This record gives sequence, structure tokens and C-alpha cells, in this order.
Amino acid sequence: MLQAWALEGIPEITAGADLVSLIADAAAGALADGDILVVTSKIVSKAEGRTVAADDREDAITAETVRVVASRQTPNGGTTRIVQNRLGIVSAAAGVDASNTPHGTVLLLPMDPDASARALATGLRSLLGVEVGVIVSDTLGRAWREGQTDSAIGAAGLHVFEDLRGGTDAEGRALVVTMPCVADEIAAAADLVKGKTSRRPVAVVRGRADLVGSLDLPGARSIVRPLERDMFRLGADEAYAEGFAAGTALSPSGP
Amino acid sequence: MLQAWALEGIPEITAGADLVSLIADAAAGALADGDILVVTSKIVSKAEGRTVAADDREDAITAETVRVVASRQTPNGGTTRIVQNRLGIVSAAAGVDASNTPHGTVLLLPMDPDASARALATGLRSLLGVEVGVIVSDTLGRAWREGQTDSAIGAAGLHVFEDLRGGTDAEGRALVVTMPCVADEIAAAADLVKGKTSRRPVAVVRGRADLVGSLDLPGARSIVRPLERDMFRLGADEAYAEGFAAGTALSPSGP
Repeated sequence: MLQAWALEGIPEITAGADLVSLIADAAAGALADGDILVVTSKIVSKAEGRTVAADDREDAITAETVRVVASRQTPNGGTTRIVQNRLGIVSAAAGVDASNTPHGTVLLLPMDPDASARALATGLRSLLGVEVGVIVSDTLGRAWREGQTDSAIGAAGLHVFEDLRGGTDAEGRALVVTMPCVADEIAAAADLVKGKTSRRPVAVVRGRADLVGSLDLPGARSIVRPLERDMFRLGADEAYAEGFAAGTALSPSGP
Repeated sequence: MLQAWALEGIPEITAGADLVSLIADAAAGALADGDILVVTSKIVSKAEGRTVAADDREDAITAETVRVVASRQTPNGGTTRIVQNRLGIVSAAAGVDASNTPHGTVLLLPMDPDASARALATGLRSLLGVEVGVIVSDTLGRAWREGQTDSAIGAAGLHVFEDLRGGTDAEGRALVVTMPCVADEIAAAADLVKGKTSRRPVAVVRGRADLVGSLDLPGARSIVRPLERDMFRLGADEAYAEGFAAGTALSPSGP
């Protein structure tokens, strides 16, 4: 049985807030060994003082962008930019968030969400004496599919993949390529109880204690596919344009 | 509180199996209004007789492919093909499955997973007198992120998106682009209790009865992003090659 519930009573988070204490208080003694806390990146960012003045949200996105993957004009004259940020995460708008933040500001992603998760897991394990895992989640769009799902952008104290590559199926054949990203699945499950519009930014997921372990396990950075293995490192229009330019440049008579 | 558990006692499924009865028996009276059943596409395919002889799995993939999105040589000399199938779903190998199937055969995806989900939801609602939703799930890889998550390829009797586009955040601002794909999140949550190697192909997700509704709600087909809105309709290498060919063709002296 998997159970997931949102913690009630997390107050509005401001810079410098002690998230370990606030989460421990909200959990009110209900945490147990093997529980996984899923913490919305937004409150981690706020606690870490990642709110910046935003005269122009677009400038903030540009500053957070390492590489533009794809961009497209929107019907209302704006631009949607799919970019890779310094964490390697590919997302719309580099995770720059202008919802649920004070007017005139935007919120950047945590500087190092794996480190944030590790600090939370370390603090909660120490304060409460329970072996919990922590996921820092963000809402990400996807290629090919409409809408968004919550995913793990930081993780500590749990296996982010259930590695079945060495396993066999019920017929005894090797499961060669199956590697469920359980951290993303747990973040998705947590989103079902947290909601986007209410102030319940922390959920507990119970029932997969087998995934919880050392604080030294690889974090969510290991979920990011390396560029050299990424067949979708550029949008189709962007890659076509690069190819077209290279093709025309081949011939001196080309444009 | 969200709860998810796998049903025990679903037997090995063969062509013509009555999934409604088998699921109802395995649920053993435990289903309630608002529960969502997540059924692994594999058993739907088996019940629908979608097992085909596979002298060559690659031929089966080709037959299921409407459009090759990207392909790449694997280190062991094979080819990974990311393709779009007739359902519009972009996935590796067109969902052609050679695991947990008898040797010498492969399993194709259900012909119409939304119709399969609707038949299951209709049958279970009628047989058990409870208003349940049904998701048919498959394991899909993702762009930019390693590993796979379970996603909804068929759905009936539930809202596949939680549409917040008309809503406001806690500060009263419009949530313009947030549209959580709750069907995919529920499929992901269910995978956490089903497992890949055990024979527990059906899970119940309880706690989001607000998403369950009419059997006429849009199915999982509505999750597929239309091609004209898809910035990743081709792999980067494939789009580059198309652009390069167009560029060189521009000039008569080009290759």
C-alpha cells in the first residue's frame, strides 16, 4: 500500500526560514522510517532567498539559461523558450517562476536542489530520528505530451531509479533497458495531494521504504540525460536551421 | 490522503479473457465510488489478442510505426528507434513488447486504448455499481531525462488534465499555462505499487474522486500533443539532416 498526504500548517516561507523545523512541526510526529518527503522547489527557493526583483521576467530567464533548446512564438506575441539551465534540467522558462510570488518579483530555482534535499534529509533524520528520503520537486512540461507532471529536481537519501537492468522478467528474460525513474513517479504521486493553488507545498509518500537509503546515493542530477546521449538536444526547427545553414555554406554560390 | 495498491490474484491473461470479471474478482468488493483503476496495457493487449509471432521484433516495430522521430545506433550494434505510432504516442519501439511474453512472440499495444479503458470502466461500473475511472498505462521513456515513467495511453471516466488555466494562484493571479496531466501522475503512482517483474498488472488509486466523472470525458488521446504544436517532432540529428539536404539542394553546384 502506497500512501501520500500533504502536510498541513506549513506557513508562508520567507528567506532564511528553517525548513527542517517547519516540516518537522507540520509532520507532528507522524513521520516513520522509510517515508519520503516531497518538497516543492518553490519553498526551498524562498527559504534560500532566491527571490529576485523582476522588472523583466524574460531577462531573468535569459540569465538562468545555459543553452536554448527550442523557442517558439506564442499566439499572443510572446515567446516560449525551452532551455537547459545550469542544473542540466530542460524546461520552459528555466524554472523562473512568477506565480505565487510577490508582485514584481520572480523566484529562481534552488542553486543546488540535490544539496538542498541533502540538507533537509540530514536535518530531519537528525531532528526526528527517522530515516527519511527527500525529493525537491518542480513542475515540468514534456516533449510530445500536453500538460505537465511534477518531477524530481533534487533528491537525497533514496534511490532515484529502480534499476531493473540486471533483473529478469517473470519469464526469466533479462530486462535490458527498464529503469523506472521512481523519484519522478514519487514526485508525480505527491503532486496529486499537494495541488497547485493551495499552500500545501510538502507531501509525505509512504510505502516504498525499500527505496530509502544512504545520504550518499546519487541525487536528481543523475536523472538528467547527458547531452551526448540526448536525441532531442535541440528543437526540430532549430536543428533544421543549423543544418540548412551548414548546407548552404558548403557551396560558394549558396546564399 | 491518496492510497494506491496493487490487486492480487490476477491470473495470467490470455486472448479473450474477460478483464472486467477478473478485475472485479481480484478487487473482491473493495472498490468504491471515485476509485481509479490503472491497468497495465500489457494485459489489455493480451486479452485483446494482440500477441503476434515475432521472427523479427524490428519488423513488428516497423509495422507499428507511422513516423520515425529519431533513431540512433546502440553500442551493441542495434538501433534505438523513437517513433510515433498510429495512436500518436511517441515512444521507443512503438510499444512493441518482448518482455513477459512467450518466447518467439511480441505484444503490440491495444488497438484503441481509450476504447479499451471505456469498455473496462463501463463493465466495472455496471457489474459492481461503483463509479470508477480507468487508465490503461504504458511505460514510456522521456526526452532529456533518463529512465522511464508509467503514463496513461488510455483513459475513461476521469479528467486526464486538472485544468487550472482558468484558475488563480494564492496571490490571485491567473495560472495561465499550468495544466497538470493527472492521468500520467496517477499512472506513475500506480507503477510504484505494481512493479515490473511481478504479476500485479492492476492497481487501484483512491483519493482523487474529484477527477472521476462521465464516460464521455476526453481520453488519453487528448494528451498527445498535436504535431503542429510539437517542438520536438523530429530528433535533432534528423532535423539537421533535413535542413542540410534542403540547404545543399538550394544551389545547383551543391552536392
